[in-house]
Amino acid sequence: MSRVTIVVHSGDFDKIMSALIIGNGYLAMGDSCTLFFTFWGLLALIKGKLRKSDMRLSRMNMAGIGAWMMRRKMKRANVAPPEKLMEDYRALGGRVIACEMTMGVMGLSKNDLDDHMIDEYAGVGQFVKASQESRTTLFI
Amino acid sequence: MSRVTIVVHSGDFDKIMSALIIGNGYLAMGDSCTLFFTFWGLLALIKGKLRKSDMRLSRMNMAGIGAWMMRRKMKRANVAPPEKLMEDYRALGGRVIACEMTMGVMGLSKNDLDDHMIDEYAGVGQFVKASQESRTTLFI
Amino acid sequence: MSRVTIVVHSGDFDKIMSALIIGNGYLAMGDSCTLFFTFWGLLALIKGKLRKSDMRLSRMNMAGIGAWMMRRKMKRANVAPPEKLMEDYRALGGRVIACEMTMGVMGLSKNDLDDHMIDEYAGVGQFVKASQESRTTLFI
Repeated sequence: MSRVTIVVHSGDFDKIMSALIIGNGYLAMGDSCTLFFTFWGLLALIKGKLRKSDMRLSRMNMAGIGAWMMRRKMKRANVAPPEKLMEDYRALGGRVIACEMTMGVMGLSKNDLDDHMIDEYAGVGQFVKASQESRTTLFI
Repeated sequence: MSRVTIVVHSGDFDKIMSALIIGNGYLAMGDSCTLFFTFWGLLALIKGKLRKSDMRLSRMNMAGIGAWMMRRKMKRANVAPPEKLMEDYRALGGRVIACEMTMGVMGLSKNDLDDHMIDEYAGVGQFVKASQESRTTLFI
Repeated sequence: MSRVTIVVHSGDFDKIMSALIIGNGYLAMGDSCTLFFTFWGLLALIKGKLRKSDMRLSRMNMAGIGAWMMRRKMKRANVAPPEKLMEDYRALGGRVIACEMTMGVMGLSKNDLDDHMIDEYAGVGQFVKASQESRTTLFI
């Protein structure tokens, strides 16, 4: 049972950051949390992906800030990068579901994904079940 | 009264898919559901729109996958297309509200929209009322 | 304590409009509301920004409608512009938190932001606290 369930639909760097920061925030303040990675969000679970600087931002027109630039600015501001946030999320007991339907559509197998980050491979039914037991459900 | 209320603000093909798959998931597992189509989301209610392959994706840079390509990949993976998901949603008793304010801003009349998919034409007040009675509210 | 908490992650003109219209809708119908402006959303709190016509739309390909065009269409449809919606939001008692982490990453100081619109400068902890006390939490 999770108090918080978050659909991670977006694969944009800044949205993945928001999902992980918010997820860690809930965990740090006593809630349990399930992240359901689906559609573009699932791509963040591909082996090595979170460490890469080629992730897209949801908007690029901020004086040319790309994901690489944002990583630099985050580092300077002492904000952890996504791979570290995910490590923390897992260490704090955060649960991760990889969407099987998306794997099928995108032709990804379990081998493509980083199974250290994943508790379950499941469909929308598991998401709904988690959400029905949650106080808070978000779509990112 | 709805247990789940979802604002569909985005008109992107993949977000519309997520909204309908999630909506159907809740309905299949015993919740009632209201979808409030507003801003770009409202465009999905234009007659014939859901069947078209010209819908935009929220991101295009995945090796050139456009909505057409995604439809093909979905078909191969036995994922129903949006027009079928909407049919299922309606058959399962899902409720749909078309945002009147957006119709006014975009110059759309009831004649432009597919009224088989719509229960009500209403404003933000109806959305808030549905949300206040819901366990779960999402913004997509 | 807030009955509704909304993360405003996006800085797109139409998403800011949705956030403010929905926030005002909840306030008008008896809920309290907290808006947590973070990532691109924080840019909407920069002095004078909400009045400008240079805000981005989350999609541009609707027959060339940009934010300027949308402002015109909204005016014709008697929809208030974002600066007026924010005024109403504040007059109705809506609470605003500016995300300190984002300020650090983007190099923005309190001087850059319009403090008439802001109650608190805080981190994800304050957001989580508001959300834990809320019936409804949205991510926009």
